[in-house]
Amino acid sequence: MYVILVYDMNQKRVAKMLKLCRRYLHWIQNSVFEGELTGVQLKSLKIEAKEIMRGDDSLILFKSKDERWLEKEVVGEEKNKIDNFL
Amino acid sequence: MYVILVYDMNQKRVAKMLKLCRRYLHWIQNSVFEGELTGVQLKSLKIEAKEIMRGDDSLILFKSKDERWLEKEVVGEEKNKIDNFL
Repeated sequence: MYVILVYDMNQKRVAKMLKLCRRYLHWIQNSVFEGELTGVQLKSLKIEAKEIMRGDDSLILFKSKDERWLEKEVVGEEKNKIDNFL
Repeated sequence: MYVILVYDMNQKRVAKMLKLCRRYLHWIQNSVFEGELTGVQLKSLKIEAKEIMRGDDSLILFKSKDERWLEKEVVGEEKNKIDNFL
C-alpha cells in the first residue's frame, strides 16, 4: 500500500525517528515521508516507532491501496527532489 | 476532494500560515491539516498561501477524489480530537 507518514516528536527523539522512517520510506519534507510498503513492513515500522515514542510524541499514517488514488502537489521549495523521483 | 496539507515554514511566517490553513481545513498535528475542499477553495487556499510563502517555505498537498480511498491511523498522542471528529 501507499503510505504517507507524518511525525511530531520531542526534539530528544526526533533523530532516532528520522533514521527509522528513512529505512522504510522516502523523506519529502521536514517530518513527512511517503512510499510503498507491504502490510508486514508497515507493521514492523509501527512496532519500531512505538519503541522510540514517549509522552506527547505522535505519528500519523495515511494509507491508500493505490498510489494513483493520491495526487501530490508541491507549492514552493521542493525539499528532496531525488526522493520525489524514486 | 479530500486534501491533506503539510507545511514547512520559517518561524516568522508560521503563525500566518497556521491561521490560513485553519480557515480551510482541520488541524490534525503540528503542521498537518486535512479536510474536504472544492476545486475553487483549493485554488484560493494556494493563492493565499503563496502570498505568505518566502524563500525555503514549502507546502505539500495530497489530494484524493474520495476520502474513503485514504485510511488514517494515529499512533500515540492524538493532538486534536475535536477536529478529527468533525
